[in-house]
Amino acid sequence: MKKPSVTGLEDVVAADTLISYANGLEGQLVYRGYWAKELAIHYSFEEAACLLWRGHLPDAAELTNCKEQFARDRRLTPELKTLLDAIPREAPLMSTVMSAVAALIPEEDGTGWPPELRQAVRITALLPTVIAYRYHSIMGTQWPGEVDEYDHVAYYLHVLFGRPATAAHIRVMNAYMILAMEHGLNASTFAARVVASTESDIYSAVSAAIGAMKGPLHGGAPSGVIKLLERVGSKPQAEPVIRNMLEQGERLMGFGHRIYKRLDPRAEALREVTGAMAGIDEWFDLALYTEQTAIRLLAEYKPGRGIYTNVEFYAAALMRSLQMPDLLFTPTFTAARVVGWTAHVLEQSGHNRIFRPQSNYVGPMPI
Amino acid sequence: MKKPSVTGLEDVVAADTLISYANGLEGQLVYRGYWAKELAIHYSFEEAACLLWRGHLPDAAELTNCKEQFARDRRLTPELKTLLDAIPREAPLMSTVMSAVAALIPEEDGTGWPPELRQAVRITALLPTVIAYRYHSIMGTQWPGEVDEYDHVAYYLHVLFGRPATAAHIRVMNAYMILAMEHGLNASTFAARVVASTESDIYSAVSAAIGAMKGPLHGGAPSGVIKLLERVGSKPQAEPVIRNMLEQGERLMGFGHRIYKRLDPRAEALREVTGAMAGIDEWFDLALYTEQTAIRLLAEYKPGRGIYTNVEFYAAALMRSLQMPDLLFTPTFTAARVVGWTAHVLEQSGHNRIFRPQSNYVGPMPI
Repeated sequence: MKKPSVTGLEDVVAADTLISYANGLEGQLVYRGYWAKELAIHYSFEEAACLLWRGHLPDAAELTNCKEQFARDRRLTPELKTLLDAIPREAPLMSTVMSAVAALIPEEDGTGWPPELRQAVRITALLPTVIAYRYHSIMGTQWPGEVDEYDHVAYYLHVLFGRPATAAHIRVMNAYMILAMEHGLNASTFAARVVASTESDIYSAVSAAIGAMKGPLHGGAPSGVIKLLERVGSKPQAEPVIRNMLEQGERLMGFGHRIYKRLDPRAEALREVTGAMAGIDEWFDLALYTEQTAIRLLAEYKPGRGIYTNVEFYAAALMRSLQMPDLLFTPTFTAARVVGWTAHVLEQSGHNRIFRPQSNYVGPMPI
Repeated sequence: MKKPSVTGLEDVVAADTLISYANGLEGQLVYRGYWAKELAIHYSFEEAACLLWRGHLPDAAELTNCKEQFARDRRLTPELKTLLDAIPREAPLMSTVMSAVAALIPEEDGTGWPPELRQAVRITALLPTVIAYRYHSIMGTQWPGEVDEYDHVAYYLHVLFGRPATAAHIRVMNAYMILAMEHGLNASTFAARVVASTESDIYSAVSAAIGAMKGPLHGGAPSGVIKLLERVGSKPQAEPVIRNMLEQGERLMGFGHRIYKRLDPRAEALREVTGAMAGIDEWFDLALYTEQTAIRLLAEYKPGRGIYTNVEFYAAALMRSLQMPDLLFTPTFTAARVVGWTAHVLEQSGHNRIFRPQSNYVGPMPI
C-alpha cells in the first residue's frame, strides 16, 4: 500500500494576479507595478495598503478618506470588548485574533459576497486594536483606551506599549509592515483565497488566513536573530562571537532565504531605513555592525556561497529595539499581512472559481 | 494587461490519500476500503467516524472508548457558554461556530502540533452542542441542557429540537451524516489541509474549513428540493406538478450531480434507508413517490440524458420531515463533514509539506 503524500503545489500556478511579483533570482519584490522597497522607504502604511487594494496610489482626497475610515473602524466597540473578554484567557493570542475576526458581521458593512473594499479597511484597521487589547489582558497591564493617533502604525505601537512611540521606531515599523504586507500565494494568503472561492465572506477568509499564519512553518518569529544580537551585545563582541559560532558549525539566523537567492529586497529596504536611524538607536546601530561583520565572516568561512541578509535580520533588530515580546511577533506580522490577504480576496471575487483539487486514493477497494 | 484569473486546481492532484475515493463515472464512494453506502446503512456515526480517523472499524472496546469520549466532550462548559453568549446575536450561525472552534485551546488535550485523534473526537463531539446552543439563542427557545442520550446523532437531534427524535429520524439522519462525512479535497477539506500544513493546530484548521463551508458555492442548502416537495404536497399532485415544471423549462432540483454521472451512491443509500421508513413517515413516503415520478418524466422530457437522483433529494426529504429550518442545513452538514476534515488534518500531519502554490504576475513592472 502506497503511503499518502502531499505535493505542496510548489510548481503549480493557482492564480494570475495583479497584486505582487516576487523574483527570487533577481531579488525583486513588486507591489502593483512599484518596488516594494521604494514604497517601504517613502510611503505610509495606509498608502501602500490602498495601492495593494485598489491598484493605484491614493491621491490626497482618497488618502484622507482612507485614513478617516481607519480612525473610525479601529475603535474597540463594547461588543468587541465583550467578545474578547469571553475568550478563555489561556487561548493563544493568534487563536483569539482568529476567533474575533470570525465573529465580525459582514452585513454590518456590506454583504457576505462579493467582498468590499470597506470591509478590507475595517478588518485592517481593527487588528491592532484586537491584538493590543488582548495583549494587555494577558499581561495584566492597562489597555490605554482611545489614543490620539491618526497614523495607523503610530496607533498600533501606542496602544501596544501604552505610550507614543519614537519617530525612529514608527519609521522602521512602517517600513517593516509595508514589506510584510504581501508575498504572493504563501499558505495564509492561499487559505484566504480557498475560503473566499466558496463565496464565503471576507471575515471568514481572513480568519482562515490567521489560522494558517499561526503555524510555526509560516508565521515563525525572528527569535533566533534576536538571540544572536543579544549574544553579540556590543560591537567589539561581534567578530569573536560570530567567528566562534561559525567555527562550532552553528547556523547564523537571519541569513539566506528560501526564495531570494541573491538578495532579499525587504532586507535591503529595512537596512536603508534602519541605517538612517542608527545614530539614535543602539540596537539599530548594533544590527548594522553585526550584519557587516557576519557577511564578512560568512565570505571567509563559506566562500562562494553568496549568502545574503534576509528580512528577519532587520525585523529582529526592530523588535529587540522596541522590546517587543515574542508573543507579539506573529500577531504583528498578521497586522501587516492582512492587507495582502484582503487584496487577494477582493481580486479572487472578480474572477472567482472554487478551489477543488483532486486527491489520489491509494487505499484498498472494497472486496 | 491580462486579466487575473483563477484555475480552481480541478485537474491538479494535491495529495495522495488513504481516506476516501469518489469515482463519478462508476458512481462509487469508498471510505477506507468500505462502500460509504454500506456504512451508512449498517453502521453508526461513531463507527464510521472511527473508521475514517483510524483506518479500521472499531472493535467493541474501541467503540465504547470512543462513545465515552463523545459523551464527555460534548458538554457545554461554562467557558464555552460564556463565549457563545458573547458573540453578537446578529452574527451568522456559521460564523459563530467558526469563532467558537477557533477559540478552543489545543493545549487542553494535547499540543498544537501534531494534531491528535482525541482532538478530532473532541471537536466532532462538541459541534452539535455549539450549533444547538446557538440555535436556541437565536430562536429564543430553551436550551434543553444535558440530555440523556448516548448516541451522537440522537443527541444532536434531541438538543436541537428539545425532545427525543423518532427512531426513523435518527436512522435516516445517521445515514445522511455518514454519507456527508467525507468527499475528498472539496474546498473546505482543502482549506483545512492548507492551514494544517503550516503546523497550525487542528482547531484552527477546522475553523478555516467551517469558513469555507459557509460559502454558498460549497455548503449550499437543499432548499430547492424542499420547495419542490412542498409544491408537490401529495402523491396525486406529483405527476401534474412535475410535468408542468418540465414543460415550463424549470430545473428540477435534486437531480444530476457535478461529479456523479451515472448514479449518486449517497442518494442510493439514503433511498434505501428512507424506503425502510416510508411506511411510518409521510414525507419519506412522498419523497420516494416523487422521485419515481420525476425519473419517469425526466426520461420522457429529456430522453437519453441519464439524469439520476442526487444526495440532496433525500437530504431534503429528511430535513422537511424533521421540520428543520433552513439556517440549520449548513451547520448540520458541518457537524458531519468535520469527521472528514479532522481525518485529513491527521493524515496531513503524517507526511506534511506546506502548501505554497505559485501565482503568475500579470501586472506592470516598475519603470
